[in-house]
Amino acid sequence: MPDAIGYARGMVMRAAAFDPTELLHRAFWLQQDMRDDARRASMLRAIAAALSDARDRIIAVASAETALTPDELAPEFSRMTRTLEVFAGVVEDGRWTRDSHTPAAANPNDAIGPNHDLRSRLVPLRGVVVVFGASNFPLAYGVCGGDTASALAAGCPVVVKEHPAHRATGRLIADTARAAIKAAGFDPDVLGYIEDDGTNSAELAKHLIEHWAVAAVGFTGSLAVGTALHRLGANRERPIPVFAEMGSVNPSVIFPAALASRGDAIIDQLAASITQRFGQQCTCPGIIFLHSNRDGRSFAEKLAAKLAQTPPRRMLSPSVASGFERAVTIVAGARDVTRVGNPTPGGPVVLHCVGSEALAQFETVLATEMFGPGVLVVDDAGYDGDSMEFPGSLTMSIWFDPDSPDDVAAARRFLDNGRFGAGRIIFNGIPTGVRVCESMTHGGPWPATNRPDSTAVGPRAIERWCRWVSWQNTPSEFSAFDDRPHDF
Amino acid sequence: MPDAIGYARGMVMRAAAFDPTELLHRAFWLQQDMRDDARRASMLRAIAAALSDARDRIIAVASAETALTPDELAPEFSRMTRTLEVFAGVVEDGRWTRDSHTPAAANPNDAIGPNHDLRSRLVPLRGVVVVFGASNFPLAYGVCGGDTASALAAGCPVVVKEHPAHRATGRLIADTARAAIKAAGFDPDVLGYIEDDGTNSAELAKHLIEHWAVAAVGFTGSLAVGTALHRLGANRERPIPVFAEMGSVNPSVIFPAALASRGDAIIDQLAASITQRFGQQCTCPGIIFLHSNRDGRSFAEKLAAKLAQTPPRRMLSPSVASGFERAVTIVAGARDVTRVGNPTPGGPVVLHCVGSEALAQFETVLATEMFGPGVLVVDDAGYDGDSMEFPGSLTMSIWFDPDSPDDVAAARRFLDNGRFGAGRIIFNGIPTGVRVCESMTHGGPWPATNRPDSTAVGPRAIERWCRWVSWQNTPSEFSAFDDRPHDF
Repeated sequence: MPDAIGYARGMVMRAAAFDPTELLHRAFWLQQDMRDDARRASMLRAIAAALSDARDRIIAVASAETALTPDELAPEFSRMTRTLEVFAGVVEDGRWTRDSHTPAAANPNDAIGPNHDLRSRLVPLRGVVVVFGASNFPLAYGVCGGDTASALAAGCPVVVKEHPAHRATGRLIADTARAAIKAAGFDPDVLGYIEDDGTNSAELAKHLIEHWAVAAVGFTGSLAVGTALHRLGANRERPIPVFAEMGSVNPSVIFPAALASRGDAIIDQLAASITQRFGQQCTCPGIIFLHSNRDGRSFAEKLAAKLAQTPPRRMLSPSVASGFERAVTIVAGARDVTRVGNPTPGGPVVLHCVGSEALAQFETVLATEMFGPGVLVVDDAGYDGDSMEFPGSLTMSIWFDPDSPDDVAAARRFLDNGRFGAGRIIFNGIPTGVRVCESMTHGGPWPATNRPDSTAVGPRAIERWCRWVSWQNTPSEFSAFDDRPHDF
Repeated sequence: MPDAIGYARGMVMRAAAFDPTELLHRAFWLQQDMRDDARRASMLRAIAAALSDARDRIIAVASAETALTPDELAPEFSRMTRTLEVFAGVVEDGRWTRDSHTPAAANPNDAIGPNHDLRSRLVPLRGVVVVFGASNFPLAYGVCGGDTASALAAGCPVVVKEHPAHRATGRLIADTARAAIKAAGFDPDVLGYIEDDGTNSAELAKHLIEHWAVAAVGFTGSLAVGTALHRLGANRERPIPVFAEMGSVNPSVIFPAALASRGDAIIDQLAASITQRFGQQCTCPGIIFLHSNRDGRSFAEKLAAKLAQTPPRRMLSPSVASGFERAVTIVAGARDVTRVGNPTPGGPVVLHCVGSEALAQFETVLATEMFGPGVLVVDDAGYDGDSMEFPGSLTMSIWFDPDSPDDVAAARRFLDNGRFGAGRIIFNGIPTGVRVCESMTHGGPWPATNRPDSTAVGPRAIERWCRWVSWQNTPSEFSAFDDRPHDF
């Protein structure tokens, strides 16, 4: 089998010459070898260690083929390996399965329905998880990023579709991880890799998602592609979940006292957040609302001046660059939206408008993510409430002055009336920078994701690849069966 | 507003004369009045109490308009009211929100990413939950069944679409519950009811699911309708989750020693399970596999003789009756499937075949639910394993002899190789009878449901109507904000 699919030569497979069906089929049947929690945890640690050993080479390859610098890639690298270790710890800890036991009631009348003994836990989905990584984080959302780590932790084999924007990085990580997996005593095909030169990505995605052996999909990328994959999964004869994290406008809402007392400091913080990785982050601030404010032009001009200090740079890919330009044109072209400052060609962009105009053009203005260093400043006076739903975001930042009772009251009212749905609400801070920890939600209502009941970051991400099973009246012969009976 | 939609006259609305848009819009904005946990719990208890007061009348109306007897409806009634009380308790208990807190690390280097303080919890989806009840359980899966109870508990307004098969029951329950809701201090439109005379159900369903105010859907019914609703929800411009519980074949697997030592007793148990409510239950046993057995004909004949003692009866509706007949014809018409015994016209049906034939005709035989008292007995010799995936089921029963090491080993191997995916695995027991308790999973892989990560019964059912939110660096001004900040 390895010969047939090219691994014997230590090469990742070539989609052009290879039907991914065989790899998926093979990965499907390898799932039964992934049941032992301790062994899966060791595998995850082994992958992390092998990647760490290859750190310098991986960062060199990634910085050569992307627009990201080694300084930008270094923390991302550490996040990738430490996330693998987090999920090793999650598996070892064991609580992720949410085990529960309802014994038969002492008095049968206390039971609603027949008085059975029941146990339940999460078990991995039966089948392969297909991972579509992100263009902007070749490491943390790449071949061995959070989707792969959490799916392997759950006990699902993974097949990663190569990202055409960083193929060498993807192959190097896949080869390194697969060697570590093999050394850890697993078949390396529990982590498969399928090349994609970008010439038939849509067809390849459809083929992968519609394959019978696939149980779920993880995706990080654009709204258009995420929506297409979501629909492919939902419209299969046997539907499967697609977890699509698609980015958002990440509103910042600045209340009046905060604006008055430390507007310049907030501008500095937001400017740094907007230009980090040249704005190419799903949590980049894209809209700033100046709450109860009617003169945001000067704020926008100061912000533009600050941003102008960041020189233009090459974006992640030509398609990211043209997408940014297109989105800026859409937002800037909306009625009464104006450009601010004298931006350098290819540099950061600041736009400005008053709130009621933005609302009137809701679809085009508020739902358009300018993926890059572009921000719309909205004078947010005259509508404080109930009349409108805003699109979902990954994050929302609330900037208020804790010493101002007016600000505190206004911010509370604002949060309370639910104008925005966000997966993470940040008090007096920028949205970029996602901590990997138990209480993190990296998700949010549509169009930020299609599954706001999930997170792509942190231990709970493992639940995306699970389903519930109960066991009724488990006899002693079976409760001894590995302590927790398997479902597959 | 109440005038316009007919409630002022104490009547439920008539879909024919009324655009449900107005009710949905109204219910959407009522959600903000549902935030207080204690008040929601009181409302659920008030509904339960009011229904209990109307118990005799509700059971009389339901037995008059359905084929179910008062004896069958009495336990279902108790399950409905006690489920409402369970969810009142869930809300009071508070653990359903799965609160967590990750403080900033003492040593910032221990944090992966920026060292923020994070809190997370489940919050209700923003919007209305639309409930499509079941034909077969007018009470427990009806207007105030588990879907409604869990959605109100989560804090979502509910709109129930009337089931054309038991309109009088639905209206009586809706009116009773809405009066109790009003007396509890809520606007009764937090539980709306939309009539459906059956003439335009598909159009009405589409209208409801595609309405902007709708956040999620609960459905119990057939695979065909469930699939259609699932796709409507997934293909909306802003997709919403549809939780469809669609029934299944509920395999029973009988191992040789159990068959030899107590085959007759098992036949008695299965026959009682198959004929309970004349087989019209989502957990009715539909397929019996005789494991490693080559002569199941006599078992099938004994089962048929036992079942023949149950006289034909009127089924739930003409469409259920014709659907049952159609499904029996499909399964009986498969190659080498034969009818067993001399069934009374309109009585229970037993079919028999050998495993390899069933496998060869997988699609038609194994995936067809005969919704009614019909069962296929499969001689399950010659394939013990790995070569086939079976469709998902709500339940799977494993019948083994605990004193037989061979049976125990075979049953373990069987569970281990995962031929069936089921939401609930039952040891030596029938699948009918669903206990309402924490460890219950009433769900399962497709085609049993489209969301095997959820349960329709038990406290965890509340999670279907929730999403995750995190709060970053929550200042004291906001952690005091109701103790747990709201998201909507």
